[in-house]
Amino acid sequence: MLSFELLKESRETSGSQSCRARLGHIKTDHGSIQTPIFMPVGTQGAVKAISKEDLDHCGAQIILGNTYHLYLRPGPEVMEHMGGLHEFSGWKKPMLTDSGGFQFFSLAKLSKFTDEGVKFQSHIDGSRHFFSPEKAVEIQLTLGSDIMMSLDWCMGHPATQAQTMEALNKTTNWAQRGYDFWQEKGGKNNLFGIVQGGMFKQLRTLSAEQLTQIDFPGFAIGGLSVGEPTELMYEMADHTLPLLPREKPRYIMGVGTPENLVTLVGMGCDMFDCVMPSRNARNGQLFTSTGTLNIYNAKFKMDKSPIDETCQCYTCQNYSRGYLRHLYKSRELLAYRLNTIHNLYYYLDLMAKMRHAIEQDQFLEFKKDFFEKRRK
Amino acid sequence: MLSFELLKESRETSGSQSCRARLGHIKTDHGSIQTPIFMPVGTQGAVKAISKEDLDHCGAQIILGNTYHLYLRPGPEVMEHMGGLHEFSGWKKPMLTDSGGFQFFSLAKLSKFTDEGVKFQSHIDGSRHFFSPEKAVEIQLTLGSDIMMSLDWCMGHPATQAQTMEALNKTTNWAQRGYDFWQEKGGKNNLFGIVQGGMFKQLRTLSAEQLTQIDFPGFAIGGLSVGEPTELMYEMADHTLPLLPREKPRYIMGVGTPENLVTLVGMGCDMFDCVMPSRNARNGQLFTSTGTLNIYNAKFKMDKSPIDETCQCYTCQNYSRGYLRHLYKSRELLAYRLNTIHNLYYYLDLMAKMRHAIEQDQFLEFKKDFFEKRRK
Repeated sequence: MLSFELLKESRETSGSQSCRARLGHIKTDHGSIQTPIFMPVGTQGAVKAISKEDLDHCGAQIILGNTYHLYLRPGPEVMEHMGGLHEFSGWKKPMLTDSGGFQFFSLAKLSKFTDEGVKFQSHIDGSRHFFSPEKAVEIQLTLGSDIMMSLDWCMGHPATQAQTMEALNKTTNWAQRGYDFWQEKGGKNNLFGIVQGGMFKQLRTLSAEQLTQIDFPGFAIGGLSVGEPTELMYEMADHTLPLLPREKPRYIMGVGTPENLVTLVGMGCDMFDCVMPSRNARNGQLFTSTGTLNIYNAKFKMDKSPIDETCQCYTCQNYSRGYLRHLYKSRELLAYRLNTIHNLYYYLDLMAKMRHAIEQDQFLEFKKDFFEKRRK
Repeated sequence: MLSFELLKESRETSGSQSCRARLGHIKTDHGSIQTPIFMPVGTQGAVKAISKEDLDHCGAQIILGNTYHLYLRPGPEVMEHMGGLHEFSGWKKPMLTDSGGFQFFSLAKLSKFTDEGVKFQSHIDGSRHFFSPEKAVEIQLTLGSDIMMSLDWCMGHPATQAQTMEALNKTTNWAQRGYDFWQEKGGKNNLFGIVQGGMFKQLRTLSAEQLTQIDFPGFAIGGLSVGEPTELMYEMADHTLPLLPREKPRYIMGVGTPENLVTLVGMGCDMFDCVMPSRNARNGQLFTSTGTLNIYNAKFKMDKSPIDETCQCYTCQNYSRGYLRHLYKSRELLAYRLNTIHNLYYYLDLMAKMRHAIEQDQFLEFKKDFFEKRRK
């Protein structure tokens, strides 16, 4: 079981602005995590384009794996034989796996949700499969992830209240079943519950009330960043975060931009994951302290400066924008690695800076400064 | 100017087998090279899928750049502004660039060879360009390569004696013009001549006689590995290598398999380059001491052992065949890097082992053992 120590709760105010940012410390069998933290996404047992040493360099404390993907390929029998995802991939630090819920929503073909679970077809070869909440936990136990996620039904946007309610009810039911199964299996590692409820505050309240009846070691907010406007996402997060137990970690799934992270940390969120830094890197979009740039822009052709003068990452310490543009335009594989290292370093460095600001009671000042610089 | 020190010439014999392997030392402005050596190919200013630190790990002493590719993209004006290829790419050790001759043969569209030079169309956008022997040297001076290659006309296989003679004559003429231009420009860095002559021994002799009249600091044999049987390639190399000056480095361009390298080192060749280790790595084909394996083979699905138990490379020290197969099947970008590191490490380690064997007067024994193990 993990332990979560809440080291500090910010009580800063500045004019009409207030801050609920938290500083915490999660202990797992594979090591410690300082929160708030961003978790790089390693969908198929590797964070795309980079190695475990690159992840160390970027400051990654915990990475994500994906149950849906790893179940389809290489499959649970391989994962079991190879000794779990840590042993298989060589990543020795903490790992979180999601349950597959989001992929049934976003990727799998013909997903069909029943009381029992989810029938779906593989996006790779169309083969038919079935996930129950118990099976989702069982596979994650095979993967050996430090933090497992309950099977949930993630609703897109827009959705009716009735649709959202149905998904919420199944999510609660599945959460209890997954929890019971996990306990029967000995309660190894950790299982988090996922709050759903779409864009309806009363449903978010209901879901949080139901889920927090179950003694999960941590809670996530799912079903955000599914197509809704940013302000609505903030409204839902701001409403839901305070409904979660103060003494347990809070994780908002699949979010988001650097601006999202800073805003949501200010609301009291502890954990994040998103493909944005790595996916955008592969598309040539690079994050900097003064905004976001497209490395393929012709203006960088003769540019000898690094992506970001203030960045200490391997890419910025070694290569010019001109060279990175050339690699990207020439479709050199090195481009994807160098860009990914930079973006993940940027994200993880941003989290480290936020932790420092919270510790120093300067989060609101940090936030103001961050938004001003990024708007440049 | 480079200096080449011939440290040792093997005089081993064993039954009917004899050995002409050489041990040498090349000094350039960017450092030293122990020969015989294999040069990884960095076509577009990067060795595909890996970084300069990966190259160091693999034991690379010198890498190749490609004049044709870098002329088209990013272009000489960028290369000049960015301070040359070393500064641009961050590779601080020696670099060799070829002249474009091979690409006019293999890649460019509608290449037309005249006395003046080569008209061609870009394989990227069809734009029209012209290379003279002088221009080939000029661009390479801009790139700042330690070893530049003369513009040559590379003939495919099969070719008639008349065609081969025409290409040979132009190659000799261009070699003299390139050399004169290089001397006019101050004779900075180094320019190698390229012996042509196709699959005709008397033309190889003629080309070598003509070329060695010019005081190039080193000589290459071009026009091999262009579709001919291996035995014919060996016959041409065996015939031509002794025609080149003993006290200058000898380089066979674009060759080859591990077996080719061992055979040709035994004939007295000092330098090699080939895309095979890196390209095959990206196709999942991995070299080992006991043969070559295809990592996507289903038999590796649950295999916990490294690619090669005897290999000290980063990939073999950290990852199983099972994981590498999963990455490759999942098209993870990390697969290409890990495979490339292994194959280049294998090639460069093979060269180091050959140098050691020559030094110990055990090259023929090494060769016998190498072929026996690889046939397994």
